Amino acid sequence: MASWIVGFTDGEGCFTVSVIRNATTRFGKQIFPEFVITQGAKSLAALRKIEKFFGCGSIVCNKRYDNHHEPLYRYCVRSVDDLAHIIIPFFSAHALQTAKRNDFAVFAKVVAMMQRKQHLTEKGRETILQLAGSMNRKKQRMQNPQRLYAEMSDTHYRMSDS
Amino acid sequence: MASWIVGFTDGEGCFTVSVIRNATTRFGKQIFPEFVITQGAKSLAALRKIEKFFGCGSIVCNKRYDNHHEPLYRYCVRSVDDLAHIIIPFFSAHALQTAKRNDFAVFAKVVAMMQRKQHLTEKGRETILQLAGSMNRKKQRMQNPQRLYAEMSDTHYRMSDS
Repeated sequence: MASWIVGFTDGEGCFTVSVIRNATTRFGKQIFPEFVITQGAKSLAALRKIEKFFGCGSIVCNKRYDNHHEPLYRYCVRSVDDLAHIIIPFFSAHALQTAKRNDFAVFAKVVAMMQRKQHLTEKGRETILQLAGSMNRKKQRMQNPQRLYAEMSDTHYRMSDS
Repeated sequence: MASWIVGFTDGEGCFTVSVIRNATTRFGKQIFPEFVITQGAKSLAALRKIEKFFGCGSIVCNKRYDNHHEPLYRYCVRSVDDLAHIIIPFFSAHALQTAKRNDFAVFAKVVAMMQRKQHLTEKGRETILQLAGSMNRKKQRMQNPQRLYAEMSDTHYRMSDS
């Protein structure tokens, strides 16, 4: 199962660090590291297996269909503790085989900094923003947080930004 | 490696049966079963590993970038013999975990029929066209072969249609 999950993540997984405006936080922005795997409704069972394997995270229905003809489901792990203690050790022990491993390395650095509460200091926050900006496809989103925000349609994001 | 390949195929692999107009063939159309995995240039090494593992197929550069910022590479196996003797036995022994397994089951049927030369009879050809039409996302393409054709930009397809 472990190798299958690595292969599936190499194909469909995503390690992202999003930055979302939130006036109630110290710096006016919140940093969200997230591990996500998206699948159409027909392959929801595969996401359930992954959720069970990791024993953390949750599956949410994404209302956007994009180019698909079925609802999309996202398995996501957003808890910094779960990322630090479950997801990152797993992918450190079972190496990704695609260029996604570069994103993962940066992602692991950001999560480690957040575990040490460095995102609450100005210097740490700047370093995290730079790291996030160096990740694949993240620059565009960070430069346009409204667009990123529009892409988030599930409850978790709404809740964390309300 | 086997489980990783199954996971990666569940994520990025594609089992397709394309139908391409070719006036030089008996029925004016050629049937192309194909196993494909596409990756950006940064992950070409992963495709090389798969090519080495199977010992068949080839990697071609796809000139279309789609939404990507780098050239795309396709690992493809098109030889009916290689599909029948290498690819299909592998995925029969190592089951896919997503809905892609349904496409694979149909794909395996089509390739078995082609191995028995049934695509050269009118009845066999009709059955194959029906099977291909039942595959995920294939209906649309089959109804519009020009669009399918436009999507094929690498040398192999040009050669086989010339």
